[in-house]
Amino acid sequence: MAIIKTEIRSGVYYDSAKLMSLQRSLAGLPGILDAGVVMGTDSNKELLEHIDLLSPEVQSAKPDDLVIVVKSEDDKAADEAMAQVDGLLAARKSDMDEAYMPRSLETAAQMLPDASWVIISVAGRYAAGVTREALRLGRHVHLFSDNVSVEDEIALKLEARERGLLVMGPDCGTAMIGGVGLAFANKIRLGPIGVVAAAGTGLQQVACRIHQLGSGMTYGIGTGGRDLSEKVGALTFLMALDALDRDPDTKVIVVTSKPPSPKVAEEVLKRARKAGKPVVVNFIARAITTLQEDNLYFATGLDDAARLAVELAKDPPKVDGDAGLKLERFKPEQKYFRGLFSGGTLAYEAQHILAGYVPRVWANAPINKEYKMANSMESQEHSIVDLGEDEFTVGRLHPMMDNELRIRRLYEEAKDPQVAVIMLDVVIGYGSHPDPASEIAPAIAKCIAEAKKDGRHLEVVCVVTGTDEDPQNFDSQVKQLVDAGAFVDGSNEVVVRYAGRILRGLAERGAPAEAVVGKAVDLATLKKPLQVINVGLESFAADMKAQETPVVHVDWKPPAGGKENLMAILERMKQRS
Amino acid sequence: MAIIKTEIRSGVYYDSAKLMSLQRSLAGLPGILDAGVVMGTDSNKELLEHIDLLSPEVQSAKPDDLVIVVKSEDDKAADEAMAQVDGLLAARKSDMDEAYMPRSLETAAQMLPDASWVIISVAGRYAAGVTREALRLGRHVHLFSDNVSVEDEIALKLEARERGLLVMGPDCGTAMIGGVGLAFANKIRLGPIGVVAAAGTGLQQVACRIHQLGSGMTYGIGTGGRDLSEKVGALTFLMALDALDRDPDTKVIVVTSKPPSPKVAEEVLKRARKAGKPVVVNFIARAITTLQEDNLYFATGLDDAARLAVELAKDPPKVDGDAGLKLERFKPEQKYFRGLFSGGTLAYEAQHILAGYVPRVWANAPINKEYKMANSMESQEHSIVDLGEDEFTVGRLHPMMDNELRIRRLYEEAKDPQVAVIMLDVVIGYGSHPDPASEIAPAIAKCIAEAKKDGRHLEVVCVVTGTDEDPQNFDSQVKQLVDAGAFVDGSNEVVVRYAGRILRGLAERGAPAEAVVGKAVDLATLKKPLQVINVGLESFAADMKAQETPVVHVDWKPPAGGKENLMAILERMKQRS
Repeated sequence: MAIIKTEIRSGVYYDSAKLMSLQRSLAGLPGILDAGVVMGTDSNKELLEHIDLLSPEVQSAKPDDLVIVVKSEDDKAADEAMAQVDGLLAARKSDMDEAYMPRSLETAAQMLPDASWVIISVAGRYAAGVTREALRLGRHVHLFSDNVSVEDEIALKLEARERGLLVMGPDCGTAMIGGVGLAFANKIRLGPIGVVAAAGTGLQQVACRIHQLGSGMTYGIGTGGRDLSEKVGALTFLMALDALDRDPDTKVIVVTSKPPSPKVAEEVLKRARKAGKPVVVNFIARAITTLQEDNLYFATGLDDAARLAVELAKDPPKVDGDAGLKLERFKPEQKYFRGLFSGGTLAYEAQHILAGYVPRVWANAPINKEYKMANSMESQEHSIVDLGEDEFTVGRLHPMMDNELRIRRLYEEAKDPQVAVIMLDVVIGYGSHPDPASEIAPAIAKCIAEAKKDGRHLEVVCVVTGTDEDPQNFDSQVKQLVDAGAFVDGSNEVVVRYAGRILRGLAERGAPAEAVVGKAVDLATLKKPLQVINVGLESFAADMKAQETPVVHVDWKPPAGGKENLMAILERMKQRS
Repeated sequence: MAIIKTEIRSGVYYDSAKLMSLQRSLAGLPGILDAGVVMGTDSNKELLEHIDLLSPEVQSAKPDDLVIVVKSEDDKAADEAMAQVDGLLAARKSDMDEAYMPRSLETAAQMLPDASWVIISVAGRYAAGVTREALRLGRHVHLFSDNVSVEDEIALKLEARERGLLVMGPDCGTAMIGGVGLAFANKIRLGPIGVVAAAGTGLQQVACRIHQLGSGMTYGIGTGGRDLSEKVGALTFLMALDALDRDPDTKVIVVTSKPPSPKVAEEVLKRARKAGKPVVVNFIARAITTLQEDNLYFATGLDDAARLAVELAKDPPKVDGDAGLKLERFKPEQKYFRGLFSGGTLAYEAQHILAGYVPRVWANAPINKEYKMANSMESQEHSIVDLGEDEFTVGRLHPMMDNELRIRRLYEEAKDPQVAVIMLDVVIGYGSHPDPASEIAPAIAKCIAEAKKDGRHLEVVCVVTGTDEDPQNFDSQVKQLVDAGAFVDGSNEVVVRYAGRILRGLAERGAPAEAVVGKAVDLATLKKPLQVINVGLESFAADMKAQETPVVHVDWKPPAGGKENLMAILERMKQRS
């Protein structure tokens, strides 16, 4: 019968590569059936139990105890294995030149003064301290370590923002800076696409697809998976997005994230909308309602995000913002939309699209019952009335056949001083009025003229649904409406989005300018050739060398031998100094 | 001061075109300021009140009373106007040849025996009766009338299904059959796209965009906006979809709808998935989670639906169904998916995509907290474990660096006789294990071999995230995994969808064949040159003539002079005969 031997060591620190290597060495010794070398956390105990390596001694281990377990055929083999532990731990299997290994981050920073970045992969409980040190030395941090508390994350990121530095992480698996990969990172060619990702393998997957599609990247900036949680509030994400917006080499930005807080996702989109370049958006598991909204391109997944970015980067569309809307023509009190529809589906689609631009749209046939108009006869705020609804058509011709009711309503809405945009659909074809524009266009012209007398600019927008072969003729209808002063298109979506942009612009017109918080990232620190200080897993330093990137690896040990209370005292002393 | 005169007439019937024409004529008479001619419903009374045409007499009118109101400058003008009402009502302003006007649907059907279609646009309260008559005469019905109860709608559609007939409506604005438009319909060229729509102007907008993009349509079949409600359950929609699936001239199908019941939308998608051709889906206001799922293409709006359909129709992709999956290799008890991930984002995306194929996926890091695994060490049903989560990595190397834990878990999952598919991600690049496939591939081969000994086919699927320039080399990793018997791709989405199709196929394998309900539409009745019987608005018949389509207009009057109780008696007598 197999026997299990256990050893618990307190107050020691080895990085996880070392632990794994010890475990493998022990498991490979003669007579040993299995071995486990882990820190004594609850989940590690569960893991040991699951693979039949749990012993009563293990149960008593504390989270910062090192637990060594061997399972063997007999006592002798187990004892012999345990006797080798110290020798195995002492063995150094490093490719790194000892001469390059300072003991402190401070010394490393002096050795490599041009290193803008510190990669940190020490055990989670020490990671916040090391990060704070790196920030105080004025370096960006790639914080690979996980098991860092969200409170520490927030504090570190706030401190970083004050200094204009990025904290990518914690639990940030990957980053790509100027063609060089940090930590887990693929070899991606340089190119016009920049990616910000609260999603480690998400960033890797998008990057690999971009490379496979023949394009390349400027930067891939990870933020850690929690950055878009409500607590952290996109602290790193927004700084990174801002940097990529300002970077002239980045022609297209991709933002992706593990499932984000909806509220924080909105903040990210708000900033992305102000970018002067196309932004491809993929929030994992968030359904999309449109493929495009101004400079935002919504992807349904990681593949789709890469595909879109590569296509856009070939010939990036110009982003012109609100300039074409001439919002200065509207009076300050003008802000509302009134849709007077004859087509129910067009009215539904308009509600759905407008919901992306304004907080709520009332309707007599609402998508969301909460927004049912109190009275179909009287518009409120933003309203969409479907005049083809049953309530309007008992013993009365459909509004596509008879324009009278709609024109009466148009005059009413146009008089409302708070109205900025009125939308009408003009659906032609067999069955419909023989020449609707001949009645509607003069009414529009009159409304615009009367608003003008009152000092208001009234924007009337029309979708014409029809074809060149319809009896009324599409072009003739469009011409009459355009001549009357309306914005006209054959696409309901195009017209509603045009209206939406005006409404959003008018709503933001009154909003106070946002206070600048913290300091922006200095682009020069991203642009200069990468040099790195590495604290934690040695293999990350080796990977830097393989990419011909200057690196100094810190032969790091926990301060005060890893004792938590001593560490706290040390930290306080440093803060005072 | 203006005065208002009112006249109420009971037990009379005029169609809405007649009422509107009377209203316009009255309003145009000398001294008349405004006029209203409507049925006495509550909403019409509101309308009259809103435009200052309400009088105490109107208040007392009943819904089937005809209300005539004039507003004038003086008594004399009002009286003179009222005196003209009878004359105006009697005037016939029809282009229709009186000889073509039978008084009953039955006579019309004898006159035009090849008419497969009856267009019905009589007032709502009479529409169900006329529809029933048309169905009993074996004709498809385009039911334009609105204000028909949902109970009547269901009864009519059930009766129609028994007869293999379509009831498009009620409140179905538009249809296009073989190049001819019915009711509100644009002139669309003939082409390869068929559309089913629970959305009148939605159908018109899609049709016009298809035409504008240079393509064309076989059929546009409206169903009425309520057809995809939970009560009606897509009765017409499913019949129409089935007909277009069988129609050899239709190469691509578009389905669109006003906001549908989610449950009924699922039913429609289920049928659409079985179609042997591409189906473009646009449910207004339903966000999409993917652009494509097998033969389904999801559009974000009406424009997008048209664009997609036109693109697909240029070179329709072959739809091969489940044939390539070789589901017969799996044992009956095999049905579950087990994902063992090293990348958190890939694990999230996998959950998100699989949710489209199976009812629920458990995970240790679930998108939906409801589906959190009870124990990360033990999979349940469909499970996705992210082994890179904090719980697995305290003092332990990340699973991208060390494969041991994942391979242990792989062996466990492979032994479970209910498991059909196991997925692994292999993320390469700097930082990762120097040759993960060298350890993972042999384990996969062993699992597949052991399952085979047990008579099971185990499908192992892998996504490799990496590039040709990564140190491990993408192609070399792929080759090792493929040689071990795995399905491998560089796209997480492609791999997960492949797994999803297997899982759905296995789940449906056990399901009983669905009972055939009702009778399918006889394609020949859609294919033969269109001939139409029209009941209601005369202008629809005129539009048929304009499109050179044989039509008989019925000079219809309500049975029993419109008296409801008499009508009920008549109906019962007919049923007995």
